[in-house]
Amino acid sequence: MANLEATQSPAPKVAVGGTRPARSRVVVRGTTKARLDFATILGAIGAFALIATAMILGGSPGAFIDLPAMLIVFGGTFLVTTISYTFGDVIRAQSVMLRAILYHVQHPRDAALRMLSLAEQARAKGPLGLQDQLDVLHYDRFLHKAVSLVVDGTPGDEVERILSREVDATSQRHLRSAGVLRRAGEVAPAMGLIGTLVGLVQMLGNLDDPSAIGPAMAVALLTTFYGAILANMVFLPLANKLDRNSGAEAMVKQIYAIGAASIGRQENPRRLELTFNTILPPGEQVKHFD
Amino acid sequence: MANLEATQSPAPKVAVGGTRPARSRVVVRGTTKARLDFATILGAIGAFALIATAMILGGSPGAFIDLPAMLIVFGGTFLVTTISYTFGDVIRAQSVMLRAILYHVQHPRDAALRMLSLAEQARAKGPLGLQDQLDVLHYDRFLHKAVSLVVDGTPGDEVERILSREVDATSQRHLRSAGVLRRAGEVAPAMGLIGTLVGLVQMLGNLDDPSAIGPAMAVALLTTFYGAILANMVFLPLANKLDRNSGAEAMVKQIYAIGAASIGRQENPRRLELTFNTILPPGEQVKHFD
Amino acid sequence: MANLEATQSPAPKVAVGGTRPARSRVVVRGTTKARLDFATILGAIGAFALIATAMILGGSPGAFIDLPAMLIVFGGTFLVTTISYTFGDVIRAQSVMLRAILYHVQHPRDAALRMLSLAEQARAKGPLGLQDQLDVLHYDRFLHKAVSLVVDGTPGDEVERILSREVDATSQRHLRSAGVLRRAGEVAPAMGLIGTLVGLVQMLGNLDDPSAIGPAMAVALLTTFYGAILANMVFLPLANKLDRNSGAEAMVKQIYAIGAASIGRQENPRRLELTFNTILPPGEQVKHFD
Amino acid sequence: MANLEATQSPAPKVAVGGTRPARSRVVVRGTTKARLDFATILGAIGAFALIATAMILGGSPGAFIDLPAMLIVFGGTFLVTTISYTFGDVIRAQSVMLRAILYHVQHPRDAALRMLSLAEQARAKGPLGLQDQLDVLHYDRFLHKAVSLVVDGTPGDEVERILSREVDATSQRHLRSAGVLRRAGEVAPAMGLIGTLVGLVQMLGNLDDPSAIGPAMAVALLTTFYGAILANMVFLPLANKLDRNSGAEAMVKQIYAIGAASIGRQENPRRLELTFNTILPPGEQVKHFD
Amino acid sequence: MANLEATQSPAPKVAVGGTRPARSRVVVRGTTKARLDFATILGAIGAFALIATAMILGGSPGAFIDLPAMLIVFGGTFLVTTISYTFGDVIRAQSVMLRAILYHVQHPRDAALRMLSLAEQARAKGPLGLQDQLDVLHYDRFLHKAVSLVVDGTPGDEVERILSREVDATSQRHLRSAGVLRRAGEVAPAMGLIGTLVGLVQMLGNLDDPSAIGPAMAVALLTTFYGAILANMVFLPLANKLDRNSGAEAMVKQIYAIGAASIGRQENPRRLELTFNTILPPGEQVKHFD
Repeated sequence: MANLEATQSPAPKVAVGGTRPARSRVVVRGTTKARLDFATILGAIGAFALIATAMILGGSPGAFIDLPAMLIVFGGTFLVTTISYTFGDVIRAQSVMLRAILYHVQHPRDAALRMLSLAEQARAKGPLGLQDQLDVLHYDRFLHKAVSLVVDGTPGDEVERILSREVDATSQRHLRSAGVLRRAGEVAPAMGLIGTLVGLVQMLGNLDDPSAIGPAMAVALLTTFYGAILANMVFLPLANKLDRNSGAEAMVKQIYAIGAASIGRQENPRRLELTFNTILPPGEQVKHFD
Repeated sequence: MANLEATQSPAPKVAVGGTRPARSRVVVRGTTKARLDFATILGAIGAFALIATAMILGGSPGAFIDLPAMLIVFGGTFLVTTISYTFGDVIRAQSVMLRAILYHVQHPRDAALRMLSLAEQARAKGPLGLQDQLDVLHYDRFLHKAVSLVVDGTPGDEVERILSREVDATSQRHLRSAGVLRRAGEVAPAMGLIGTLVGLVQMLGNLDDPSAIGPAMAVALLTTFYGAILANMVFLPLANKLDRNSGAEAMVKQIYAIGAASIGRQENPRRLELTFNTILPPGEQVKHFD
Repeated sequence: MANLEATQSPAPKVAVGGTRPARSRVVVRGTTKARLDFATILGAIGAFALIATAMILGGSPGAFIDLPAMLIVFGGTFLVTTISYTFGDVIRAQSVMLRAILYHVQHPRDAALRMLSLAEQARAKGPLGLQDQLDVLHYDRFLHKAVSLVVDGTPGDEVERILSREVDATSQRHLRSAGVLRRAGEVAPAMGLIGTLVGLVQMLGNLDDPSAIGPAMAVALLTTFYGAILANMVFLPLANKLDRNSGAEAMVKQIYAIGAASIGRQENPRRLELTFNTILPPGEQVKHFD
Repeated sequence: MANLEATQSPAPKVAVGGTRPARSRVVVRGTTKARLDFATILGAIGAFALIATAMILGGSPGAFIDLPAMLIVFGGTFLVTTISYTFGDVIRAQSVMLRAILYHVQHPRDAALRMLSLAEQARAKGPLGLQDQLDVLHYDRFLHKAVSLVVDGTPGDEVERILSREVDATSQRHLRSAGVLRRAGEVAPAMGLIGTLVGLVQMLGNLDDPSAIGPAMAVALLTTFYGAILANMVFLPLANKLDRNSGAEAMVKQIYAIGAASIGRQENPRRLELTFNTILPPGEQVKHFD
Repeated sequence: MANLEATQSPAPKVAVGGTRPARSRVVVRGTTKARLDFATILGAIGAFALIATAMILGGSPGAFIDLPAMLIVFGGTFLVTTISYTFGDVIRAQSVMLRAILYHVQHPRDAALRMLSLAEQARAKGPLGLQDQLDVLHYDRFLHKAVSLVVDGTPGDEVERILSREVDATSQRHLRSAGVLRRAGEVAPAMGLIGTLVGLVQMLGNLDDPSAIGPAMAVALLTTFYGAILANMVFLPLANKLDRNSGAEAMVKQIYAIGAASIGRQENPRRLELTFNTILPPGEQVKHFD
């Protein structure tokens, strides 16, 4: 294992021995092209297909379509969620739902390798040497900002404070967006219950024709059914997915923040590798240095 | 990007170079006129219209009006909520519900720009130079207090401690007010259940006339219906809105607090801009300095 | 606004200028006479009257009284709550319920004014000068203790630590007492469900006489009804009230603690006023000094 | 009130004035004999007697006994709880349930007095003077350890760290044991529901004989009934009691820890009394010194 | 009890007196062979056997098998859980469920003894003397890493920081895996409800043939039944078991981390024993030194 003695030597302008600046430029380059999240898409299509099949097998799929019931649940959920937030929040939540289908992927392991490569170059040429890497990093706003701070000569602790505050603020914002969906997931069953109560009261009011009881109750139950579908197959899974993606994104950003702070403190890159390996899961540990 | 070297220079009485005090007076001026919150109003009107339509389509909207049932749910919810708090709390919650309809709006981005402009002036003329700005700031009690503290020469850390304690205390108070509504949102369905149980016991006691069972059950269900409406379409959405507005207000105040503290510490305004941009969402970042 | 320059001057034995010790003795005097909490009393009476009216309007109020059902719910709730705690806890909870009806009231604003007046005297005559005030303060055990500590010359930070630990310990104790009620509020509906299940099983066992089904089910539902009443109209509102009162009491004590610590640190009373105004709600801010 | 001036004098080997070592040896002695917890026992017996009476009054207590239903709920709850934990945990939870019936009692007030008496002796004879008290303290493992540490000359802060870590670890362990019961309290109603669903499906499958419907449903409901009893009258109350006892035990241990640390720091015992009185409830405050 | 005076002596290269390096090599050796978790296996088999028996006793076990119902609940739960996460997460959760059946066991007490033995050797031969022990420790990745850090001469505080960060990251990862199962445990009953609503609406739509109502409702209830089984007898218990195992594993790792840090700080092993005994439960305390 590597010796860590020289770890905190203040400002080694030139690296020696086992660091290989040659390879690094390749790794740093990267992209964050939007990718379809097949888990979301296939999961949703599959689940709805399942329910539709069950309806069709039962013989009368038309019995499950009732416009007033849909209006109460879909419209009501939208409107009540709007009371709970603002139009802006609700529209933003819409676009956020899209993010659960189309997302910009980055792997923690790649982020760690990229950061190690940058740290190695900074070790060899000094933090200012990363100046010419900045153009390559435009594909990731956060990484670009992190490296900019280092290049500007911001002290390591300051870099860490600024970046981790941004990570926190972003997580908070994502939490809030997922919160709109989660709230909609609470409102939908409530609107379903209200619709069913309306139907039940109407049905109970005129029990004269016993043959009408069944269909009336079926219609009354439809709002509960729509509410359950909407909450459990749309809003709650998407809210969950957003939380999950936000967590993954925060981890990548945290790696960039730790790395930039470490470069700012001019620490030994090997030490950074050690730190990354305490955070990364066992199967995805990085081994940049031999 | 800006150089931050001079960032912590202790007391620059006169600013030089890239700061432009000319523009700033305009930005600082502002108002917090009350605005109707259309999301709340339209959402509520729409949702109630939906339910009313469903009742009317069902043929007998009169079946949904029952005075004793209303008394149990509306009166009972009010009274039980009163037991849980004091008259003062409940009345304050009333006025707080108004705040969900009529609110004083301020955008975090505007607050940040305003603060940057003030910081620029303080940089140029010293903190005492903000004295003549105080009159313009009367439209916002908190901002006025923040700038007053700075003008009085309170040290930056002290300014931050005082203001953030006030932000906390205000958030706590808002949380408590939203808590009254949230409690009412728990009580309403409970009173609905109690009312339905009263109706069911009465109905089950005399099953002699089978034709009366239906209407009796319909009436019994009405309290559950009222409770569900009251909780899910009034109290809980409003409580949620209050929490949301309180969060937005706290963010604006936090920006004022950070800004005032930064002026008090006589930091470089560019550094303040950097800090604001770690808090503001990506699309609303400020760019006061070129 | 006041100048805070002399704020931390170590030991000013005699105050000068704008402090007016003459007025203060009056303010310091106070009482904490027990007052009936009308919100609790009227709320409870009103809510029960509502339910009773609904029963009477239904024609047969006697149908709602069933001794075995009452025994299961009232007795069962008491006994199961006793298992969860000790006899001592349950008896203490009884007396604590009384506190939700009869309470010792103190307003945060009065507490702040009282403390400012004491701070002013301490500023004028030194902390030891509060010695003769101690007799007047016997109406509030905590305030008396706070001032005693200051008079004994305990350093300010120590005063703060001791008093805030006591505030915490008291809050914890109140939380525990409210917890007994809250637990009873969980047990009551559970006992109601158990009672209803007993009734249902008995009824279903002999369905021979169809005319007996209705009344039997009515009786079975009574335990659910009692459980819902007990939990939602007695235990949970009272637990909520206790939490609320405990919070209000903690705020008053916190004001005394902050004030005593400030006197102990011999800070400027104007600074104390500033601190109080960050905690007090906008409409209740103090203005002791001109 | 006592003067605290000499509070932090480093090493007073001999006490003077108002300390009375004569009385103390008596107080220190103590026992922790196991006592039956009558609240648990009487509460449980009473609650079960109530339910049994209701069954007998209903005419056919035999209708409530069904072996397969019992197997599903009792056996199922045991087995599913075993999946959730290990055999060891479940067996330990058994013995822990015993602790809710038979417990070792110590009153916080007695603990405080005992500690004050030890502190007084340590003040008079030095920490090493507690050596001969160690034999008397064998009845409480924790107190013995606390005093041993002091006698060994461990510094006060170290004593506090060691002991409070042990208090935490013990609380965690108790929480875990109560967690097993709490989990069982969640599993039991779920098994009850599963059993009822099995019964309902079987009943609905053959509706040919209408007279069999009632008894079949009664049997189906029995598992729900057993689940409700098991959870609400056994597991949840006992879990609650364990939490309560664990809290009381932790408080006594905390008093020992604070006391031992104070002796280790050779503080004035009067100061220790002051600290104890901020933790103890108003009616149980100690007054060891005059 | 041991004297702790020499505890923090900086660098004792050779131990004297009561340390016995001879015995230790044996203890350090160890294995973590995978063991079947019989609590999980027997609990699950037993619980399912119970339910199966109840089905068979009821006469028509075939009534409980319905392919469409199974598809809705099993397929739907899988698909909706997939929406909530990614394919990777769901597949990982599968393998994680295996870990609840087959696990690598280590006892906290053994870990403590192993660590004490290593500490004793480090005391005798210096931290570098553990070099030759490294090969024996390959059976536990974490222990190996901990000792490697010490052998590399990493300072004690650094060792503690690195290792406890790794413990945290691992716990977080386990929490996330258990979260997938817990989420599936929420989705399953929801899919059961949706399936039942589909069945009810279909049944209510054609009530013409009264004899078909019973079987139709039985089938409708089956999805609720499957959902209850899946959630309460599979997902939730396994999620609980994973949390439990993760906690146990974290405790063992914490012991290794504390031990390695203590060796790195070259503390007295007796002191380490004392620390271990504050964490270990009463019956499992270690006594390595006489």
